[in-house]
Amino acid sequence: MRIGELSRRTGVPVPTIKYYVREGLLPPGELTSPNQAVYGGSHERRLKLIRALLDVGGMKVAEIADVLTAVDDPARPVHNVLGTAADHLGTTDAEPDDTETAAARDVVADLVSRRHWHSHTSNPAAADLAKALAALTRLGHGSFVEVLDDYADAAERVARVDLAYVDRRGAVEDRVESAVIGTVLGEAVFSALRRLAHVDASAKLYGADGPPERGTG
Amino acid sequence: MRIGELSRRTGVPVPTIKYYVREGLLPPGELTSPNQAVYGGSHERRLKLIRALLDVGGMKVAEIADVLTAVDDPARPVHNVLGTAADHLGTTDAEPDDTETAAARDVVADLVSRRHWHSHTSNPAAADLAKALAALTRLGHGSFVEVLDDYADAAERVARVDLAYVDRRGAVEDRVESAVIGTVLGEAVFSALRRLAHVDASAKLYGADGPPERGTG
Repeated sequence: MRIGELSRRTGVPVPTIKYYVREGLLPPGELTSPNQAVYGGSHERRLKLIRALLDVGGMKVAEIADVLTAVDDPARPVHNVLGTAADHLGTTDAEPDDTETAAARDVVADLVSRRHWHSHTSNPAAADLAKALAALTRLGHGSFVEVLDDYADAAERVARVDLAYVDRRGAVEDRVESAVIGTVLGEAVFSALRRLAHVDASAKLYGADGPPERGTG
Repeated sequence: MRIGELSRRTGVPVPTIKYYVREGLLPPGELTSPNQAVYGGSHERRLKLIRALLDVGGMKVAEIADVLTAVDDPARPVHNVLGTAADHLGTTDAEPDDTETAAARDVVADLVSRRHWHSHTSNPAAADLAKALAALTRLGHGSFVEVLDDYADAAERVARVDLAYVDRRGAVEDRVESAVIGTVLGEAVFSALRRLAHVDASAKLYGADGPPERGTG
């Protein structure tokens, strides 16, 4: 199909498609003349994936380029691609080198070892976890670590469900793409569900329709 | 304390503190002379909260201003403040009005009703969930809805733990702030744990040290 048809099918404007090709997110179309390229079903699918990672996953174009390079590399082990996708969900830049961060790193190392997780503490997710725990401690919420194992139980459950889902997908190529989709979109799904469950738990505890907790009625 | 001391204690530069005051995130200091203001422990604490919501929660300044206005309003029921904080975690802007979105909305409504959740489908989290599910369907992952109840079980568990944690905090004012912190920072904690648990589940299923799944050794 021509680029106009690709744009129509995916809802992505033509200049945006050209931008994704320049940035290496989308392979170029096949040239049929010096000024004419044709695109196939793989382009359409890839564009939908890019839009989902951008719109739902909140990823940046450069991050998506990284993940898609890993997806497209046939020499890359599945395990490794998952890590690349997951690393881009994090926020970690420079960590402050203070007491709270050092203590939080110990808590994370202890958690990983206690649960026998095959996860290195050099993983960006471990750094993100330490950063969040250190921020909680600074705000007087050091006791949040008491619920960390409940959180970890829930996270393990979700991770097992995710991996089982990915594993059910047949071809390895499809599994890799599924893992990327599941990692990023699954995060958005869980986040939304947690917020919905909060509304429910909060309504049951504090009352949505009952008398308000504070002041006016 | 003077603004320089407040800056030293929190690590937030003086011009940034002044910017937060202008944007309404931080109450102004008490004027002791026309050019001199003093700040107290509440300013220090508020600044730490702002930094945590920015750095760990990934929230924007305008979103934080909204949430803090809700926290500071004594007439606002707890239930309502939680909603304001949670709404800012979402990504939802305009939803496409297509078949996938309509079907995903039905799935969400069915889930909420089946689980007897006190959550309206008008909640922004419901829209975010529908958006993520619609994106999955467009990518050929409509069968992801099969694991939605497993996800919801885990989300319920986390939400119950969160609310019990918040409820243990004594004063109502503290509970409200705790709820905001828990909603935003708890999200970062769970996201990091899920990614760590993925690495573990993936290593067990596909092998981290064993032979790679694809190609080279």
